[in-house]
Amino acid sequence: MAALQAAPDALAHRYGDAEMVQSKEITGRAWTRVDALNETLKDREVLLRGRVHNVRGKGKSAFIVLRQQTATVQVTLFVDDVNVSKGMVKWASALARESVVDVKGLVVHPEVPIESCTQKEVEVVCREIHCISRSDPELPFLIEDASRPDSAFEAEDTQFVRVLQDTRLNNRVMDLRTPANNAIFKIQSGVGTLFREALLRRNFTEIHTPKLIAGASEGGAAVFKLDYMQVGPACLAQSPQLYKQMAIMGDLEGVFEIGPVFRAEDSNTHRHLCEFTGLDMEMTIKEHYDEVLDVLDELFVSMFDGLNERFKREIGVVNEQHPFEPLQYCRPSLRLTFEEGVKMLQEAGEEVDPLGDIGTETERVLGRLVKEKYGTDFYMLTRYPLNARPFYTMPAPDDPNYTNSFDIFIRGQEIISGAQRIHDPKLLAERAEACGIELPTIQPYIDSFKYGAMPHGGCGVGLERVAMLFLNLPNIRKTSMFPRDPKRLTP
Amino acid sequence: MAALQAAPDALAHRYGDAEMVQSKEITGRAWTRVDALNETLKDREVLLRGRVHNVRGKGKSAFIVLRQQTATVQVTLFVDDVNVSKGMVKWASALARESVVDVKGLVVHPEVPIESCTQKEVEVVCREIHCISRSDPELPFLIEDASRPDSAFEAEDTQFVRVLQDTRLNNRVMDLRTPANNAIFKIQSGVGTLFREALLRRNFTEIHTPKLIAGASEGGAAVFKLDYMQVGPACLAQSPQLYKQMAIMGDLEGVFEIGPVFRAEDSNTHRHLCEFTGLDMEMTIKEHYDEVLDVLDELFVSMFDGLNERFKREIGVVNEQHPFEPLQYCRPSLRLTFEEGVKMLQEAGEEVDPLGDIGTETERVLGRLVKEKYGTDFYMLTRYPLNARPFYTMPAPDDPNYTNSFDIFIRGQEIISGAQRIHDPKLLAERAEACGIELPTIQPYIDSFKYGAMPHGGCGVGLERVAMLFLNLPNIRKTSMFPRDPKRLTP
Repeated sequence: MAALQAAPDALAHRYGDAEMVQSKEITGRAWTRVDALNETLKDREVLLRGRVHNVRGKGKSAFIVLRQQTATVQVTLFVDDVNVSKGMVKWASALARESVVDVKGLVVHPEVPIESCTQKEVEVVCREIHCISRSDPELPFLIEDASRPDSAFEAEDTQFVRVLQDTRLNNRVMDLRTPANNAIFKIQSGVGTLFREALLRRNFTEIHTPKLIAGASEGGAAVFKLDYMQVGPACLAQSPQLYKQMAIMGDLEGVFEIGPVFRAEDSNTHRHLCEFTGLDMEMTIKEHYDEVLDVLDELFVSMFDGLNERFKREIGVVNEQHPFEPLQYCRPSLRLTFEEGVKMLQEAGEEVDPLGDIGTETERVLGRLVKEKYGTDFYMLTRYPLNARPFYTMPAPDDPNYTNSFDIFIRGQEIISGAQRIHDPKLLAERAEACGIELPTIQPYIDSFKYGAMPHGGCGVGLERVAMLFLNLPNIRKTSMFPRDPKRLTP
Repeated sequence: MAALQAAPDALAHRYGDAEMVQSKEITGRAWTRVDALNETLKDREVLLRGRVHNVRGKGKSAFIVLRQQTATVQVTLFVDDVNVSKGMVKWASALARESVVDVKGLVVHPEVPIESCTQKEVEVVCREIHCISRSDPELPFLIEDASRPDSAFEAEDTQFVRVLQDTRLNNRVMDLRTPANNAIFKIQSGVGTLFREALLRRNFTEIHTPKLIAGASEGGAAVFKLDYMQVGPACLAQSPQLYKQMAIMGDLEGVFEIGPVFRAEDSNTHRHLCEFTGLDMEMTIKEHYDEVLDVLDELFVSMFDGLNERFKREIGVVNEQHPFEPLQYCRPSLRLTFEEGVKMLQEAGEEVDPLGDIGTETERVLGRLVKEKYGTDFYMLTRYPLNARPFYTMPAPDDPNYTNSFDIFIRGQEIISGAQRIHDPKLLAERAEACGIELPTIQPYIDSFKYGAMPHGGCGVGLERVAMLFLNLPNIRKTSMFPRDPKRLTP
């Protein structure tokens, strides 16, 4: 027996650790994607690169589940001493999960469908297997555990290991490998792409405005401060508000920006982050801020259509772990005035200040009422009270208690805040003073409108919120790749 | 005479200050764009909104040059007491430049082409003119002065007013209105769009990584520091290097990011900024970093093609003020090794350290030599010496003095730096130690590669540099909308 083990394996070249990939040569070999395998490839030899999702050695055989992104396929090894040696099975069986391997093998149709893999009708009979990168055998958690459907944890006495949010985020590299997370970040990318496409179709210009600025960009929220070179104190932009308005004053007519937004707010909620991705837009209007809403209406309907069409597979993958009702939206989108919203709430027995703002919980109630009455999860609420909006919001022409403004909601949660902005420097100064702002602190802002100002309006959208609410996920940390909250700065 | 002036003007409703645009009503009126005017509209009434670029009153007539973005048209007023009153001409003649006006009028074909306008074959006979927003009559500079071709300032005794860079940047809202700047920022937007399109075609995922991070992202450059909530000290990311590599380790396979990059470097040069827009990408490779170069080759050739096709008009507008030679590039792009570059430089009599880096000036010389020999302004220089690259760069397989790395140049100036990255945690730790880095400070980075690491590579591109060098502009402040340098934090 000892002698047998010591005998050199004639098939040793068919397995083992590969030399480190170091750009040594270009061999011209072609790798097939795991998700591209199908029965038309039957009896053909393919080369795959993926991770050892799972491995089971059993005497003279080994079964590997090979994973590449969200796709998995079964790779089989049976000792036959022609193609597969005992040593090869032993070596393969000992591979640590998550290791990266190259597998060369034959595509075959299994006798019974492989229920444990996404590839059920094909498997790969291994001819060669080499390890490209070994994983530490001690994983912070198993991808399998982190991928289980929410329903697995419904029962109180569930036997399954629950991977908690913080464990996931502390080991985000591992957590991102779950099929649902892979799909979520492709969908998140799609939200940005579709936002941009819709505005480029309308000849908007993408801009990049500074995040390092001299003053706080909006009065309300707390701001991150730092020292800037020899110049002095600076802060991180809480929104590109002033800069996108300046771009409009610079005659770009329609602009948008996709970039980080910083809020030093001590909010530990499911929907706040200290750094998030803002989708901002601003445009000239000819006479009415409905022109902005028309653009947003078309934008969001085409975004939802685009997500449903282009990311059908990814939406399905998310659904497997986190089942959700598809987003209901109508065309054109529903627009209600704030007064109409207040009336609906009052009729439902809610207490609301008709000239104040409505809180998060009341917004949810209104979302439910709107869904019941109009059958949509997406709607626009316009004409907010003056008290609920920043000083630079244009007052309504017919009633000084209201403004030319709007919020937009998905599933009862706010994703967008926008308005017509005051373009008249005199009125802007008046409103700032009325709001208790010291004029010298915002003089440069007011001065931007001094040399002829095009009437304009715009809005800011939270990218992570759109992705979260489209997929009806419970926490914004699920749609932020490396979330920043009051307690988290790493990884 | 006094009695005459006091008499009410029967045409008073045809001119004057409009009521503030405040979303009062939607009239259904349609505005024609100034650049859309043409002879097919002859004798038709159009409504325009633009700025008073220039106005000249002369007794019973007034001539206004109306500007909308880069297009201008002449608007004429002649007193006839039927459509145009004396009061109307007087009022129009007194309009401050840059004021925004609505003009209703008839499109006519002028007897002689209007050489001073972009619309030479049509002008507009004014029927109504109302001011939407008045400009302060005292402008920081005239758009006309800020738009003059570079050639106007070649003669030492030029009579023209030169608007200096700082004056422009201090009044950026005005400066952005010049035709060349309007075009530059549309082209800048195009650079980002084309970068993104090329990578989305290859199924890359757009990501958004945090700018607030716990450690310095790259050892070399100086970093902006701040306090983060209750957590402690934080800094602004000098690149998304670690995070895009983590996204790859999270199995996203190909990722890119377009976002701000912060460098607290005291560099007062024509090509450095303290905040700029990084176009970053990272991808898995199967065996060779040439795979990254292949993607970049296709990406940049399609970007240059796309800019030349989609922004032909804008490129023409920039050319009028800042004449430049169109970018020469070949397909496939030229690739030279660092050793080949050194040889070319040495043959031209330059002193170069074959195992060091080459400086900015030497890069320019090499750019000229390459242009002479190969006829291209765009090329890739590969296999940089180990000493010239960061510790995480994969060493070359055949010679430890070199690395699997590259820089890419436009017109002799670097726009991209990239490489295959070390994916092996052991080698990564060795290289970090050899570079004098204390391991504990980068342990989380090294640990990202612990659970099986796909070989990968990528690069970072400076958006403003690409736009600057494509257009052969002399200063990066011309392609950054609100530049940040060691001395400038406003506007």
